[in-house]
Amino acid sequence: MTQRYADKQLKLFSLTSNTEIAEKIAEAAGIPLGKLSSKQFSDGEIMINIEESVRGDDIFIIQSTSYPVNDHLWELLIMVDACKRASAHSVNVVIPYFGYSRQDRIAAAREPITAKLVANMLVKAGVDRVLTLDLHASQVQGFFDIPVDNLLTIPLFAKSYVDKGLIGENVVVVSPKNSGIKRARSLAEILYSPLAIIDYSMDDSEREEGYIIGEVAGKKAILVDDILNTGKTFAEAAKILERGGVTEIYAVASHGLFAGGAADILEAAPIKEIIITDSVCSNVRIPKNAHYISASELIADAIIRIHEKQPLSPLFAYHAENKEG
Amino acid sequence: MTQRYADKQLKLFSLTSNTEIAEKIAEAAGIPLGKLSSKQFSDGEIMINIEESVRGDDIFIIQSTSYPVNDHLWELLIMVDACKRASAHSVNVVIPYFGYSRQDRIAAAREPITAKLVANMLVKAGVDRVLTLDLHASQVQGFFDIPVDNLLTIPLFAKSYVDKGLIGENVVVVSPKNSGIKRARSLAEILYSPLAIIDYSMDDSEREEGYIIGEVAGKKAILVDDILNTGKTFAEAAKILERGGVTEIYAVASHGLFAGGAADILEAAPIKEIIITDSVCSNVRIPKNAHYISASELIADAIIRIHEKQPLSPLFAYHAENKEG
Amino acid sequence: MTQRYADKQLKLFSLTSNTEIAEKIAEAAGIPLGKLSSKQFSDGEIMINIEESVRGDDIFIIQSTSYPVNDHLWELLIMVDACKRASAHSVNVVIPYFGYSRQDRIAAAREPITAKLVANMLVKAGVDRVLTLDLHASQVQGFFDIPVDNLLTIPLFAKSYVDKGLIGENVVVVSPKNSGIKRARSLAEILYSPLAIIDYSMDDSEREEGYIIGEVAGKKAILVDDILNTGKTFAEAAKILERGGVTEIYAVASHGLFAGGAADILEAAPIKEIIITDSVCSNVRIPKNAHYISASELIADAIIRIHEKQPLSPLFAYHAENKEG
Amino acid sequence: MTQRYADKQLKLFSLTSNTEIAEKIAEAAGIPLGKLSSKQFSDGEIMINIEESVRGDDIFIIQSTSYPVNDHLWELLIMVDACKRASAHSVNVVIPYFGYSRQDRIAAAREPITAKLVANMLVKAGVDRVLTLDLHASQVQGFFDIPVDNLLTIPLFAKSYVDKGLIGENVVVVSPKNSGIKRARSLAEILYSPLAIIDYSMDDSEREEGYIIGEVAGKKAILVDDILNTGKTFAEAAKILERGGVTEIYAVASHGLFAGGAADILEAAPIKEIIITDSVCSNVRIPKNAHYISASELIADAIIRIHEKQPLSPLFAYHAENKEG
Amino acid sequence: MTQRYADKQLKLFSLTSNTEIAEKIAEAAGIPLGKLSSKQFSDGEIMINIEESVRGDDIFIIQSTSYPVNDHLWELLIMVDACKRASAHSVNVVIPYFGYSRQDRIAAAREPITAKLVANMLVKAGVDRVLTLDLHASQVQGFFDIPVDNLLTIPLFAKSYVDKGLIGENVVVVSPKNSGIKRARSLAEILYSPLAIIDYSMDDSEREEGYIIGEVAGKKAILVDDILNTGKTFAEAAKILERGGVTEIYAVASHGLFAGGAADILEAAPIKEIIITDSVCSNVRIPKNAHYISASELIADAIIRIHEKQPLSPLFAYHAENKEG
Amino acid sequence: MTQRYADKQLKLFSLTSNTEIAEKIAEAAGIPLGKLSSKQFSDGEIMINIEESVRGDDIFIIQSTSYPVNDHLWELLIMVDACKRASAHSVNVVIPYFGYSRQDRIAAAREPITAKLVANMLVKAGVDRVLTLDLHASQVQGFFDIPVDNLLTIPLFAKSYVDKGLIGENVVVVSPKNSGIKRARSLAEILYSPLAIIDYSMDDSEREEGYIIGEVAGKKAILVDDILNTGKTFAEAAKILERGGVTEIYAVASHGLFAGGAADILEAAPIKEIIITDSVCSNVRIPKNAHYISASELIADAIIRIHEKQPLSPLFAYHAENKEG
Repeated sequence: MTQRYADKQLKLFSLTSNTEIAEKIAEAAGIPLGKLSSKQFSDGEIMINIEESVRGDDIFIIQSTSYPVNDHLWELLIMVDACKRASAHSVNVVIPYFGYSRQDRIAAAREPITAKLVANMLVKAGVDRVLTLDLHASQVQGFFDIPVDNLLTIPLFAKSYVDKGLIGENVVVVSPKNSGIKRARSLAEILYSPLAIIDYSMDDSEREEGYIIGEVAGKKAILVDDILNTGKTFAEAAKILERGGVTEIYAVASHGLFAGGAADILEAAPIKEIIITDSVCSNVRIPKNAHYISASELIADAIIRIHEKQPLSPLFAYHAENKEG
Repeated sequence: MTQRYADKQLKLFSLTSNTEIAEKIAEAAGIPLGKLSSKQFSDGEIMINIEESVRGDDIFIIQSTSYPVNDHLWELLIMVDACKRASAHSVNVVIPYFGYSRQDRIAAAREPITAKLVANMLVKAGVDRVLTLDLHASQVQGFFDIPVDNLLTIPLFAKSYVDKGLIGENVVVVSPKNSGIKRARSLAEILYSPLAIIDYSMDDSEREEGYIIGEVAGKKAILVDDILNTGKTFAEAAKILERGGVTEIYAVASHGLFAGGAADILEAAPIKEIIITDSVCSNVRIPKNAHYISASELIADAIIRIHEKQPLSPLFAYHAENKEG
Repeated sequence: MTQRYADKQLKLFSLTSNTEIAEKIAEAAGIPLGKLSSKQFSDGEIMINIEESVRGDDIFIIQSTSYPVNDHLWELLIMVDACKRASAHSVNVVIPYFGYSRQDRIAAAREPITAKLVANMLVKAGVDRVLTLDLHASQVQGFFDIPVDNLLTIPLFAKSYVDKGLIGENVVVVSPKNSGIKRARSLAEILYSPLAIIDYSMDDSEREEGYIIGEVAGKKAILVDDILNTGKTFAEAAKILERGGVTEIYAVASHGLFAGGAADILEAAPIKEIIITDSVCSNVRIPKNAHYISASELIADAIIRIHEKQPLSPLFAYHAENKEG
Repeated sequence: MTQRYADKQLKLFSLTSNTEIAEKIAEAAGIPLGKLSSKQFSDGEIMINIEESVRGDDIFIIQSTSYPVNDHLWELLIMVDACKRASAHSVNVVIPYFGYSRQDRIAAAREPITAKLVANMLVKAGVDRVLTLDLHASQVQGFFDIPVDNLLTIPLFAKSYVDKGLIGENVVVVSPKNSGIKRARSLAEILYSPLAIIDYSMDDSEREEGYIIGEVAGKKAILVDDILNTGKTFAEAAKILERGGVTEIYAVASHGLFAGGAADILEAAPIKEIIITDSVCSNVRIPKNAHYISASELIADAIIRIHEKQPLSPLFAYHAENKEG
Repeated sequence: MTQRYADKQLKLFSLTSNTEIAEKIAEAAGIPLGKLSSKQFSDGEIMINIEESVRGDDIFIIQSTSYPVNDHLWELLIMVDACKRASAHSVNVVIPYFGYSRQDRIAAAREPITAKLVANMLVKAGVDRVLTLDLHASQVQGFFDIPVDNLLTIPLFAKSYVDKGLIGENVVVVSPKNSGIKRARSLAEILYSPLAIIDYSMDDSEREEGYIIGEVAGKKAILVDDILNTGKTFAEAAKILERGGVTEIYAVASHGLFAGGAADILEAAPIKEIIITDSVCSNVRIPKNAHYISASELIADAIIRIHEKQPLSPLFAYHAENKEG
Repeated sequence: MTQRYADKQLKLFSLTSNTEIAEKIAEAAGIPLGKLSSKQFSDGEIMINIEESVRGDDIFIIQSTSYPVNDHLWELLIMVDACKRASAHSVNVVIPYFGYSRQDRIAAAREPITAKLVANMLVKAGVDRVLTLDLHASQVQGFFDIPVDNLLTIPLFAKSYVDKGLIGENVVVVSPKNSGIKRARSLAEILYSPLAIIDYSMDDSEREEGYIIGEVAGKKAILVDDILNTGKTFAEAAKILERGGVTEIYAVASHGLFAGGAADILEAAPIKEIIITDSVCSNVRIPKNAHYISASELIADAIIRIHEKQPLSPLFAYHAENKEG
């Protein structure tokens, strides 16, 4: 194991949604996970008991608010309440995947803004700081008045493509829908590659008939999105790109939910490789062409820097050479 | 149908946990349930759309926070957020069964007070008023600084026993555990009957050996509790009472969860009849000896009184003669 | 003048940033502007005196937070404070142009989120509701927990292009930068036209060398943006489109600031006509090819609907036939 | 004197309600009481001046909110305000007796919940933490969202009875009213003794005719309550127990107010010994059969643990052997 | 009795500090005082029960926070809590004398600002509006963010002096200490009279040796202050004025506390007549040269105007002719 | 330069309103000013970027909110937001001149209380502490619930007059208007000199005819005010004093705004010397008879004491001997 971190005032706890990444973060940071029990009664109520003192400590609670999102959110809120009442010095939540983040605006009359509601609930429960990974929209940081550190995944992914030689004019970075263009732009800049977008005409009769904005023929394409849910967006985009003359298709998403029959859909799609981070610990089948890159070292580094009052800005840059290299 | 209520500014909406009681309340109040869609995506996220204007209206949202409690709570919070952003004049929540109410104090080191957390979340989301039924502890009203009307079930139940002639010295009202004595006391007063308690000695070896405090031999007993969950508390108490010489055993609880194999346990117990209200709409099997008394008229009456600024105090009293009589 | 609005509890006040649109709104709504004095002392401090009673009234304060934005924001905050202390029943702010809205996220380390700060200041000062026009990012609605009605300009503009026959495949709607694609998409849908984007390569040496993503040659183009500030974005995009074979170029923006030498730059650019709303009352020269469409009737309609508790949803749709037609 | 506590950042101040326990706490903790003047003017207004710097310090203010409760509460609130404005690092209040705690729920229409009001006032004034002793209802902890440490008295008292040999089946622990059964249960567990309750029939004519639920004849009885106010509850219960065949009667309460003629009433009652803690410093006559056990060491221990970020859980357990033993 | 006020939604309640003025206000407004019981237990705790429904009503609670100020403040806070929980539509407090208002700033190191603390407590308890009379410092209005209407007494008093012919250059209005000059200035303006001040030199040896700033010899003097507490300030000032050649001395104060032996001191002083309002109902002896002018009509008028959303500004002016004249 | 301050957790930043005093404070404290860029765009919006890490640091931001006050306030609020989001440990604002402080009460119907509004905005933005200099009214401290340290200027000024021999009975300290008497009183006490006031009769015809209350003939006079704005108050008072037989006139004010043509007006007035502090960095011409005394050492001393948790009380006293002497 990594050398043990010296300052005992910093404590990590993992709730139940993603114990795999929590263990990797703990390993990378050199801090063992704290003891707690979290059980769910037959009526669905969650009961948490923290099994070691947290009085005066800086607590980092690791919980992805993925499926079942409502249980995972309540488990998080209850843990925050318990920490606060048990006199923790600060309560920091590490949310590698931030559920409900797509409900960030009123798109039709009388809709809620659930992402803001989640932010309000966390703050009211007593959260002092949020550490998260590639928020769906960066404006969600502004839903909070406490510090939010939103780590980026594009630098992690870029390295993988650079290593494969997927750079320059022969590659095109493609946003599979018109709303994700900034994330695609950010990868394209590192790879020195052009950009394209898949758009969908709104004619009722041909809703599925997407088309490409930009030049893709003869190039290798990298599809970029933040949340891979049912796989349909990637699968459909890949078919359109194939028809548009793309020679090889890659896909990358920060968060892999793989809901419904995503594995089947994505294995059937003309996608050579899909990369996702381990922000979500899915209990469903993962497609064979999917490959994980762990965000645990990045998160562990951020936790240590936060605790030691060191700037996080170095974590946001792309480094051509990796740290070990 | 009951005559339609005239003031259109008062609107009722039912969320998904207990549409049966919601429909009965709507019928009793003469107010049709408002239109809304509430769907849950494959990743567990709930999306609500209110399908009629609520601008300037007084909204009453009916939702029991029973199993699955975390989903039902988030559905409620999201609906409140949607109503508030859609310019509702007031947002009132009707919670016939208030989940997490038993987690109302710190019983062991570093426990949360989840009932207070729920209260804080509701208020922060924008709730203006709570209407509920027989809270586990009346102190939970003090967890809110908004008005909370806590309707009582004992007057409803008392009438049923008076009708059966279960009154006076030949009947004993029994609390099946030492913490529920106030609720039992309240029924005993109406029935002019004495009181007894089942207590459990704490010897490790004989935890199950409960004993009776009070005189029960030769009497008919009514066991009283607020939440009937797995049925074990009632079943065990009934056995103890039977051994103690009780001649006939009844049981009454405000909220019937019937979790786990409660139906089997309760059918096997020496209990002649169990009464519960319809505060919880259970999707599990109900024991054959269980019988529902609807709280819907009481709740509908309270909603109308709240909207018309009439006092609720008449609803708290036991009336020997019922209203129609 | 339009017939006088009957309910005297609804009062409009105009602060000093855009008295022109305020007068038009007042005219359209049939409500005279309330009396107030707002003076600025030699030390820059603003002193407001409301010269008629507002006790118990629903106040709508009209103020665009355009240049000089800091003065206009303080004037607004001070007026809100005065209304609240003078016992107004509700304080609603009508902000046709919402300044600082582009500072809605942390783009680089240690940046503020000034749009959220503005939202917090308004709410803390006592604002009950915000009515605004085409927010830079719709997520800014979530910066508030009070109701925010964000009126859309695209339906207003679409009518103008439909009237000119600028519809269908021969027209391309162009976002002059990669971040504005949703707004362009929304106009393209009404016009049944395709979409294109101007993107800029990030090579240091050729920052100005933008390029087009999408098909534009031989088409008429409509450039769409929300805020027209210095005019450089439109001018540069127009030159790129001209080089790309576009036959005729139009431009449309919701808010016309025309800062710096915008008039000169835009008159020199190959743009046939620029449309903006009157959300900003600029004291600088407007280019000769610019043309205003008033948002005053839309805003007046919204104010009346809010006061009468009628839904605003009808105001968000595009109507092929206008109301008078 | 006990050795002086080293960390000067921890400061104790005593207000005027119970300087005796404050001095004992200070002695036990090894921390001298800070200097302050608190005077009351002829119009009843209290003026506090803190006579030493508290800038950056962790302040513990000792004040029981006993008679005259309203003066003692305002003195406490004013001291908290002064500490906060004088830049104290944290303001902790030590309230051995928490006044108004019995008003913790709405028992009849239109009643206040004064215990919650007190909690709100303390928090709004700037209190960061509460340390108290045997709250009337443990749910009052949930009236706060700041940490509340509620020390228990039962372990203190149990030792006294164990030392006297009052244990086992020959002893019965009696709750003198139906609401205090949990506290009695908790003592009964330590003493391995059974439980009984005094209940009162509600017949108008014989309100005073209480009766016993449980077996008491031939046993020694220990009456347990939290607040000993006028002494009537204990006196009446003792008479009932005497009539019920109890051979010897003891009584114990956490807080001894001894209001009205309590001394006379209790001396006349068949109670051999009454134990109370020194949480209240009464200026009235104490009955001759009353005996104090000091809670000062327990409180001092808790203050030091809080300041040193050590868990308080060891303080909640009953230790058969005392520390010195 | 005055004709009964028609709108039953407006309810007045009097707490115990000044039932005399409350009855006069009720009479003047034509609104009977609501029913409530407020009792104080032997341990000093206050228990309030509102004995009629307040659901949906606009409640005005009349309470001067005079001696015993801490009891009167808690009684007020508890009543506010009860009204809010009982679903009052608005809770307005009428505080003819606002206790603790002199503690409005930090005059020495580590002092509290108790007037702000009182404001915070009232608002946190749920007060929606404050109606008061001649605040010690008008800045205290800014301690609240809710509407505060601060009625003035000088116009009431001026009429009395004008009627006596005490106007013009032969009269001098005197502030008995350097801090009250604004109030004196305000009376002097109406009477067209000059101004003088009593100041005290700070030499330790002769602290009592005050002196006059301004011309007073041969004139009649009116001493003006807001709070008449022990009477020493007026008595001393009168002696200095007498020595300074003043021919006749009058004194006027808004609030008459008459603490300590004020009656003796003031009767012994060379003051012809002292006027005070009935804002405080003192239970001590009043000097024979004191005379009350009732503020009840002014307050009743303000309550009605607030309820009817009429401006209060007409109440602030001095009217040479009185209303009946 | 002064020796460098050791604790790097304490950081000073200067915004743009008064970089001169900020540099002197930095010099005196031995702490270099932190790096930040603050630019204003053509549309008036301010963009701040903090160019060094502030994570975990105690930040002191120096900004006088003088002309243009609205820009300077927004710059301050934005900087506070940026610091808070960048995880500063505490955000302290140093406001040598506190703009809008004269709008501290409602002087006429429907006026705002802008000084309270400013306080609310600062606190809501995230300020933890305010350090300021000679507030217009000390009650403004109570507009905050966070610690406010209000440094005094009178001790600084007194030394200057003592050095000149301006002490005793031959000197009179004069308040140029009736509201500033307390500040004059405070200087008079140190100099052992009497007091006088300039008052203005309110006759419409002769508004300018001020007159003197008190004895001044044959004495040297020191006019004292807090804010020197247009210079008219001092100039007019000096003329009246000259007519009243004063032999030599001095003037002193804490804050020199010198708005409008103040320099001309003051040079033309019979004032020998005017002293002000450097709290405001004016970009207008300063009169030749004006002389600055720097408050920078006092402020630097306060910052260090705050950071080191030392009391500030020694800074409030007048020391006959200066520190170096």
